[in-house]
Amino acid sequence: MSPRRPERRSEEAAQAVVQAALELCQEVGYGKLSIEGIASRAGVGKNTIYRWWPSKGAVLLDGLLSAMSVDASMADTGDIVADLKAQMIAAVGALGDTPLGAQYRALIGEAQHNPELARALLDRFIEPLRTASALRIELAQRKGQIRSDLDSEFLVEMLYGPLYYRLLLTQRVPERARIEAIVDTAFAGIAPS
Amino acid sequence: MSPRRPERRSEEAAQAVVQAALELCQEVGYGKLSIEGIASRAGVGKNTIYRWWPSKGAVLLDGLLSAMSVDASMADTGDIVADLKAQMIAAVGALGDTPLGAQYRALIGEAQHNPELARALLDRFIEPLRTASALRIELAQRKGQIRSDLDSEFLVEMLYGPLYYRLLLTQRVPERARIEAIVDTAFAGIAPS
Repeated sequence: MSPRRPERRSEEAAQAVVQAALELCQEVGYGKLSIEGIASRAGVGKNTIYRWWPSKGAVLLDGLLSAMSVDASMADTGDIVADLKAQMIAAVGALGDTPLGAQYRALIGEAQHNPELARALLDRFIEPLRTASALRIELAQRKGQIRSDLDSEFLVEMLYGPLYYRLLLTQRVPERARIEAIVDTAFAGIAPS
Repeated sequence: MSPRRPERRSEEAAQAVVQAALELCQEVGYGKLSIEGIASRAGVGKNTIYRWWPSKGAVLLDGLLSAMSVDASMADTGDIVADLKAQMIAAVGALGDTPLGAQYRALIGEAQHNPELARALLDRFIEPLRTASALRIELAQRKGQIRSDLDSEFLVEMLYGPLYYRLLLTQRVPERARIEAIVDTAFAGIAPS
């Protein structure tokens, strides 16, 4: 075997750190996750971690990104209502009552008082998801399937807001029927016909 | 002066702890808030705090409840759209870009990985707000101003979800025009007419 280059060793160490953070977070929960614990599990020094990441949240964000593809481009079957429902059901399946979902919620939680992590989470995870949904919505607007007087970013918040409300404020994962009702009600409106 | 009863002293100490937590959280942020710091500011021992509260989040929740009335019964002018907008604008004014708002968001954040705090925050703060809105919505349903085939709890999530999405996921406080657009769009629906 030829000797490994230092860069290669660093990349392996980084992967070990991220993997250790994912495993430990699942085992002990985000509150008890520590840089010390991650370093010990990954077999690296604490300073190695601090050299690459500003906080445990930043390590975990890398873990979330490595575990989940954020190529979230939405399917286009021509039926925007069906496509939105399918995308939401899949997203809730991946990020609802799962270890990755618990980590995503913990990162959203940390973001509430950690502006640096909030920016990284928004830029690297949430915005790509928002953009994918917004592009699909704009296509539907051009086809006359959604009101064209509303901004697509605003529409993303109208459609996905009720999902996040339930998940983050009541700690309940929206079930399939509720997701479908959210989309149907957003389209039809809550005013009596 | 007659000697103070121990219960009275305890109540004063509890108030000092809660007040110290509110002040310190505003000064150093939730991430750096510690039981040690609260105890030092309040002039009590750490064990006194741990005897009464399970975590710094629990102290801060008491602070939020003492600083804000949760008598959130909604006004009834007869116009449900106007009443919802007014209530949301007032709520965002109180809990948006304010020290109390930062504390509320930090508690929602902590709740994502602390089930005990999540339950307390839901029971003592969020549920009373939800119930007040749901009662006002049910009155509007009886008057034929909102579809009666939808559950009032579901309607609360449809209406308030977009506010929380913007606040918690994008760290932006919804401005007045956006709040009004959320309510108008929820009533009218996003399907083309």
